[in-house]
Amino acid sequence: MNFNIGLIGKGNVGTAFLQLLNEINPIIISRFKIDIKVLGIFENDGAILDENGINLDRLLKLGKEFRTLVNWKSGYRALDYIDKLNLNIMIETTPTIPDNGEPARSHIIKALNNKMDVITSNKAPLYLDYKNIKKIAQDRMQLIRYEATVASCVPILSIKRNLQGSKIIGITAILNGTSNYILSKMFNHGCRFEQALKEAQDLGYAESNPNLDISGYDAAGKLVILADELLDYGLTIKDVNIKGIENINKYDIELAKLNNQVIKQLSFAKNGHLFVKPHPVNKSSYFNVNDSLNIIELETKNAGKIVLSGRGAGGAEAASAIMNDLIFIIQERMRYSSNKLVM
Amino acid sequence: MNFNIGLIGKGNVGTAFLQLLNEINPIIISRFKIDIKVLGIFENDGAILDENGINLDRLLKLGKEFRTLVNWKSGYRALDYIDKLNLNIMIETTPTIPDNGEPARSHIIKALNNKMDVITSNKAPLYLDYKNIKKIAQDRMQLIRYEATVASCVPILSIKRNLQGSKIIGITAILNGTSNYILSKMFNHGCRFEQALKEAQDLGYAESNPNLDISGYDAAGKLVILADELLDYGLTIKDVNIKGIENINKYDIELAKLNNQVIKQLSFAKNGHLFVKPHPVNKSSYFNVNDSLNIIELETKNAGKIVLSGRGAGGAEAASAIMNDLIFIIQERMRYSSNKLVM
Repeated sequence: MNFNIGLIGKGNVGTAFLQLLNEINPIIISRFKIDIKVLGIFENDGAILDENGINLDRLLKLGKEFRTLVNWKSGYRALDYIDKLNLNIMIETTPTIPDNGEPARSHIIKALNNKMDVITSNKAPLYLDYKNIKKIAQDRMQLIRYEATVASCVPILSIKRNLQGSKIIGITAILNGTSNYILSKMFNHGCRFEQALKEAQDLGYAESNPNLDISGYDAAGKLVILADELLDYGLTIKDVNIKGIENINKYDIELAKLNNQVIKQLSFAKNGHLFVKPHPVNKSSYFNVNDSLNIIELETKNAGKIVLSGRGAGGAEAASAIMNDLIFIIQERMRYSSNKLVM
Repeated sequence: MNFNIGLIGKGNVGTAFLQLLNEINPIIISRFKIDIKVLGIFENDGAILDENGINLDRLLKLGKEFRTLVNWKSGYRALDYIDKLNLNIMIETTPTIPDNGEPARSHIIKALNNKMDVITSNKAPLYLDYKNIKKIAQDRMQLIRYEATVASCVPILSIKRNLQGSKIIGITAILNGTSNYILSKMFNHGCRFEQALKEAQDLGYAESNPNLDISGYDAAGKLVILADELLDYGLTIKDVNIKGIENINKYDIELAKLNNQVIKQLSFAKNGHLFVKPHPVNKSSYFNVNDSLNIIELETKNAGKIVLSGRGAGGAEAASAIMNDLIFIIQERMRYSSNKLVM
């Protein structure tokens, strides 16, 4: 069986995915007796195209000089070409554009409408348009997976299938590493918000424009995807009550310390409502995670609270999540064509 | 499609499972358009049998008086009758017998050999005979699931399928709630081992014979299943280097406190080796869980550490895990017969 893949976005995440694929492709091929080829890699100013499969070794050695390849086609846009490449699976790793989720949203819909399964690490199309995108996938009988959109490598979305015996009724989470880093710094080193933010930027945690992180908007987007996936809320980011961490001052920190607490940017989904806000938690609580870790607590009806934690960002981490989505899709498609049990 | 279930063991876990099944069966039936019937429930002194399906409402109202039912068959043993009942799925919840895993091991093998899929919450057959049992299941094309054997409702075994993009290379875990309760008590309240143990027994955490817990044997059994499932070690409990907590004294506790640490019963799987032993961890570490929580840290090759935590014991918790195993098997069997995609 052949799987032809197209990748849109060769940034940090896209490149880490290509490295991981190049590393474990021989294992996948021998284990599943299949052939995986990357036929197209799209950037915003052109594409690398090879109908026999792009040589990933050679490509990766070029680093950022990949536009020097002979099969680099300047100006070729994903939206115009993905339906011409005979792709089975399209992987979308372009940067998140919060306002409208474009062009990722159009890439995803075009792929689903052209008989491709889709994997994306791009949050915005889902927190803006979850119901519609899922409906298109269902109508077209295509698979769509997006584990990397929330808490990166932590399998918090796909775990739904492992918890069908324990109805999930609420979520409390820390979903933004930059905010968590800033609040940890303010707490542990007594520095002011602006200082902590600058340090986070110097270390590369925060973007040069960190507004999405500190305003709570990034966490809110992830919370929407979690709630739509695990609790069937059917909401969008417009439904989230959001409060950022930018007004936390030294008096808030002092008060928390007096109560043996720390302040965290928490995300809540409960009784149909979504909130992101700075909130005190006990110092001994497992929510007192440091640096850029994410943590998600699932409250269940019958089995208490189940907690997952891990790195919430990073190229290799997102690539791991994308790779699991890819293997899942390959297994589903192979089973569908051969009707085998997964033992 | 019909699913006929047999249950062996109507203790704490078996009864909680019947309650959960009775509660959500209408939802499963309407969602999957199937018919689930419990045809037999076996205890060590007889069985309730009804080829039209046991009325669970009536049975559960009777509580421990279930032997007064007209379809109670005194002296009927599971090993003699499970192959006569036309069962699709056999659920094994008898108590763990550490020496030989019997009679659970024989129940499981007999069921697999007679065209039944199997779910078990019984650790011993797996930590003694994992490879053989898995091979029988594979040879017979039967499914076997045992999520409840490790960390109860925490989906730490089935998560393997959600982490195929992040090779797991090591495990560190707290897998025995009783030991953790005792060590927490010694640490937080300064009491001696014997006092803390007695309190755990009074509260119903520890068995009247708590040797399996404090010796590390219970944790070692769970560690074997984890390592065989997630790391393909192919070992048994005889391969675990085990040290109990019974010799921890106030000086050990004092030393840990001086170093800002606590002592935990930790289980390790790394480089092909398995260890269970008391071990210091930093007070601020996420391994510093209280009471009877379990926590499992999976070290991955590409994505750092991924952590799961939740209640490691309890009837309702184990029932949740068994129910998820049941829904998984039903989905697999329905898909296998209709060849549908899981969207």
